[in-house]
Amino acid sequence: MTQKLVIIKIGGNVLNSPGQLEQVLESFSKLDSAKILVHGGGRKADQLCTSLGIVPQMIGGRRITDAATLEVVTMVYAGLINKSIVAALQAKGCNAIGLTGADANSVQGHKRPVGDIDYGFAGDIEIPNLDSSSLRLFLDNDLTPVLCSITHDRKGQLLNTNADTIASVLSSVLAKYYQVRLIYCFEKDGVLADPENDESVIGRIDQKEYQRFQKSGVISHGMIPKMDNAFDALNNGVEKVTICGPKALVNQKMNGTEVCLTQE
Amino acid sequence: MTQKLVIIKIGGNVLNSPGQLEQVLESFSKLDSAKILVHGGGRKADQLCTSLGIVPQMIGGRRITDAATLEVVTMVYAGLINKSIVAALQAKGCNAIGLTGADANSVQGHKRPVGDIDYGFAGDIEIPNLDSSSLRLFLDNDLTPVLCSITHDRKGQLLNTNADTIASVLSSVLAKYYQVRLIYCFEKDGVLADPENDESVIGRIDQKEYQRFQKSGVISHGMIPKMDNAFDALNNGVEKVTICGPKALVNQKMNGTEVCLTQE
Repeated sequence: MTQKLVIIKIGGNVLNSPGQLEQVLESFSKLDSAKILVHGGGRKADQLCTSLGIVPQMIGGRRITDAATLEVVTMVYAGLINKSIVAALQAKGCNAIGLTGADANSVQGHKRPVGDIDYGFAGDIEIPNLDSSSLRLFLDNDLTPVLCSITHDRKGQLLNTNADTIASVLSSVLAKYYQVRLIYCFEKDGVLADPENDESVIGRIDQKEYQRFQKSGVISHGMIPKMDNAFDALNNGVEKVTICGPKALVNQKMNGTEVCLTQE
Repeated sequence: MTQKLVIIKIGGNVLNSPGQLEQVLESFSKLDSAKILVHGGGRKADQLCTSLGIVPQMIGGRRITDAATLEVVTMVYAGLINKSIVAALQAKGCNAIGLTGADANSVQGHKRPVGDIDYGFAGDIEIPNLDSSSLRLFLDNDLTPVLCSITHDRKGQLLNTNADTIASVLSSVLAKYYQVRLIYCFEKDGVLADPENDESVIGRIDQKEYQRFQKSGVISHGMIPKMDNAFDALNNGVEKVTICGPKALVNQKMNGTEVCLTQE
């Protein structure tokens, strides 16, 4: 039987709340199966930018990464946040190993081509470019990869890369070797039928409904790339994708919105 | 036959000079044997401290690491410097993996006890506390560990730890499994017989001479812990210890001062 692998991406809301992060890591460390944690940054990168007089620039929820900003995100994501998480997991008996995509060539990306917008040192990643052998070596030796949202182009350039996409692409690539469950943990308890009502979590959503919700505007903005990433993963053989809030990780029920290709 | 392993520690002078670092990494990447790179910080940590209004405090060449300083060194050593080195080595075809001591529990330390001086979050490490299994897994799978000078206490605390000591202790622990050569690369071309004359490099130095040079004041200050680390490594089965400058790495001759227990 294929081994189970849980890939959890935690969002900035969890990283910004030390108490919540502690609880999430406690639950994560207790997961029996092989596991990977993926994280981006939180408020800290913006704070450091501000302290250093760098004005954070965002377009469509994506950070414009100039050279100075790349230094900051490398320091905050790969340094402070990643190593704090690794040390906390180690204290809980989980043999975590913190990685950027450059480490052991875990996630190779390429610089996003300049189109209407120049995103600077922003990375895009594609499934065929990913060599999962190092990650499998770690997983098969009871190490728990903690990946931050920095990749590299294998030509010496670090690249700021969307953490949701990293989680989706990694899930897709590893689905050839493991039974993968992908969990996106963000600030709401799931995908909401009514964006004004936090209680209106949709239990299951398939591609047809997703298209309907997009047309009606129920699902919009930052939720669209997350949903696209979720469907990409499912289309690549990932067994289950859930979008949920930190509570669902802490209570270990992993309840939220299950994303599926078609309603059964 | 036991496999060869070269452990090179590079100092701040190399890190502070991008051109020199590039050359050193080029030579390092070409080493045929298994290898580990160990680095501390350079000027960058002090610069970031200054930008953030943190006044760097040093006593006897050691940084006093308060909580704010620990954040800075974690960002600079484990983030910026470590990941820049890893990305550069990856570009040279060397499958580098950047690590703090927390990652895969590579180097466990403990907080230095408060005596006359409170060093804050400074770490000390001892050979019996080191589990080298993760490092051996990496080495035996053609991965090249790049260790920065941050360890952890396995209770969740990151610790700022002397890079020379990390290199010495790692060499000692790994000498049970590999034929280890330890190289300290610092700002001079070797140990100098006349501190005022950069050309006066001592070719070989043994314990007796070391004691004589210490008494006469030829070897003093920061050189003493480096020499002690070198002798510790030799006493623990490390085959060869060299103290040299970056030129010796770039020309791949590794010429400098050879430290030995007794003159042959």
